[in-house]
Amino acid sequence: MATQGQVITCKAAVAYEPNKPLVIEDVQVAPPQAGEVRIKILFTALCHTDAYTWSGKDPEGLFPCILGHEAAGIVESVGEGVTEVQPGDHVIPCYQAECRECKFCKSGKTNLCGKVRTATGAGVMMNDRQSRFSVNGKSIFHFMGTSTFSQYTVVHDVSVAKIDPQAPLDKVCLLGCGVPTGLGAVWNTAKVEPGATIAIFGLGTVGLAVAEGAKSAGASRIIGVDIDSKKYDIAKNFGVTEFVNPKDYDKPIQQVLIDLTDGGVDYSFECIGNVSVMRAALECCHKGWGTSVIIGVAASGQEISTRPFQLVTGRVWKGTAFGGFKSRSQVPWLVDKYMKKEIKIDEYITHNLTLGDINKAFDLLHEGGCLRCVLKLQE
Amino acid sequence: MATQGQVITCKAAVAYEPNKPLVIEDVQVAPPQAGEVRIKILFTALCHTDAYTWSGKDPEGLFPCILGHEAAGIVESVGEGVTEVQPGDHVIPCYQAECRECKFCKSGKTNLCGKVRTATGAGVMMNDRQSRFSVNGKSIFHFMGTSTFSQYTVVHDVSVAKIDPQAPLDKVCLLGCGVPTGLGAVWNTAKVEPGATIAIFGLGTVGLAVAEGAKSAGASRIIGVDIDSKKYDIAKNFGVTEFVNPKDYDKPIQQVLIDLTDGGVDYSFECIGNVSVMRAALECCHKGWGTSVIIGVAASGQEISTRPFQLVTGRVWKGTAFGGFKSRSQVPWLVDKYMKKEIKIDEYITHNLTLGDINKAFDLLHEGGCLRCVLKLQE
Repeated sequence: MATQGQVITCKAAVAYEPNKPLVIEDVQVAPPQAGEVRIKILFTALCHTDAYTWSGKDPEGLFPCILGHEAAGIVESVGEGVTEVQPGDHVIPCYQAECRECKFCKSGKTNLCGKVRTATGAGVMMNDRQSRFSVNGKSIFHFMGTSTFSQYTVVHDVSVAKIDPQAPLDKVCLLGCGVPTGLGAVWNTAKVEPGATIAIFGLGTVGLAVAEGAKSAGASRIIGVDIDSKKYDIAKNFGVTEFVNPKDYDKPIQQVLIDLTDGGVDYSFECIGNVSVMRAALECCHKGWGTSVIIGVAASGQEISTRPFQLVTGRVWKGTAFGGFKSRSQVPWLVDKYMKKEIKIDEYITHNLTLGDINKAFDLLHEGGCLRCVLKLQE
Repeated sequence: MATQGQVITCKAAVAYEPNKPLVIEDVQVAPPQAGEVRIKILFTALCHTDAYTWSGKDPEGLFPCILGHEAAGIVESVGEGVTEVQPGDHVIPCYQAECRECKFCKSGKTNLCGKVRTATGAGVMMNDRQSRFSVNGKSIFHFMGTSTFSQYTVVHDVSVAKIDPQAPLDKVCLLGCGVPTGLGAVWNTAKVEPGATIAIFGLGTVGLAVAEGAKSAGASRIIGVDIDSKKYDIAKNFGVTEFVNPKDYDKPIQQVLIDLTDGGVDYSFECIGNVSVMRAALECCHKGWGTSVIIGVAASGQEISTRPFQLVTGRVWKGTAFGGFKSRSQVPWLVDKYMKKEIKIDEYITHNLTLGDINKAFDLLHEGGCLRCVLKLQE
């Protein structure tokens, strides 16, 4: 390609300061170095983690930066030593890398690859600990190793999932975060079995994906818990069989669920990021075997707590990141499942906008009616 | 037997008030009713749970009562409908029942049988919600459904494990609580695999049984953590390969262990009942897969806490009661393992006294050098 080895100037949404509107800028994107891949991003969705860092509440947030981590695109060029993808490949950038070499990858017990974490956490690339983004010579930090709110981005090769080129990128971009997180929490982390009773706290995209995953796993009762009763109608389409609004009860929600299920649920999932709800999610589990999975990201410094008796009497407290999926290996498998109509994606997309509307898209994210807003990045 | 159907008057240690010396009394033990078994207790050990309730810190402690729950004896008589044991059988009373009929027993997921819990929690027998113990007509509460600090006790038939009559009762009495709790935490709850690295917080009887269980499971590093360095010499005999005294370090013990193990242990076990130590035990686990098991019983009202990020990044927090062993089914199996010299018991017994010395035995329990003190109850 003509752009290979060249700096590309393109449009990107830059977050200069916490909580200030993103600015659409002409950004210079340097060519990929060894082990790096430059991707032309066609579509990106917005996720609450973007909003969390943007809000300034994330103590690890670095500014100025280019946010975004749920996207799909086409490889523009690759750096030295990159063998698994080549220009023209359709890909999903993955904030959770998979190097297949580190002790995490080799353990067979976790998807939390550690290879590039020190760089992605610092907003730079491993090779030279520098950013590939700049505006008029001023460096702009990467975010989560993905920075998909840009027409072009540079990522580590261990963070790129090559997918079926037939897959519609404006849909499968959602497989970069929220949908796999919910499905995987059920399939990989909780390992829900047929007939199980489950409770889902928070019916956003992740919570609905939990419902979908639980339905496909054969759960018999899927209880949705949300303070917005309007969400029940949508949730039914994803498999939720019962709805509980904590505001309708005087007693604690854990007691409501214990009473409703003759002792508690087999599995619960916290999809909000609220530490009080995390406690309720654990305590609504059945004595002897109930397992609660934390998915939501709590605000910095907040802590979960409970009486240890809850665990001594058999409840299990765990958590999940990216649903336990190995990103490079399993995102392509999820794309295939979507193509075979075995998992939903279209139903999560409530809005379609362009990069120029990104501030409006953030506003939508905080409204009840929005699940996922997909932005078109190219003209 | 001549005593069958009769009230038996025998010696028992009665706890009249929290924290006041136990009183050796002539106690009247009523005959077993339907579904009950009267046992002549030959030997009982003391456990920290007895001391906890005796101290008055257990809000569910009922006084006056007869404590004790780690014992062995011989069935004296049985009530109506009791078919699985008969007079003369050698047995271990089990504070955790196993009815094989309730939803807990049938679940295949837990040992926490619920059948007689409402009665044992209230210090009475299920049949008539009354106690079988009295002193001069005044009722004395049962404790944990066992009350083994008495020459005779009455228990529910679902709480009696029939064992090999060749087994020495002065030894296998320990299989009523502490030793199975430690072994089972490793084998059943954590399911430690060969090569694993583990940390044990607290090197009393339970902690040493964890070490023994981990050694037999093939753990490669077994790190004992205790504030009493004198315990290391004993601990080595049970499988502990390294010793860490938190007092020797300025940094938090979780960080000491993470540094010592290149990222954290695969499994940790809290065998003390201290909520701060429970947090350290979780946080010293390896990111991605480390599992922490709470065994110790915390004081009433205390809570555990941590940052949810600890769980989201792959650590698992669980607990165990009686090591997950199904009491009636598996205590006899543990007795057989002892008879085949596959598990230790003798090595935990540091003192042998008689019922009359029980207050001295409680004093010993709080001294570093005492693991288990076994009391002989019959002349």
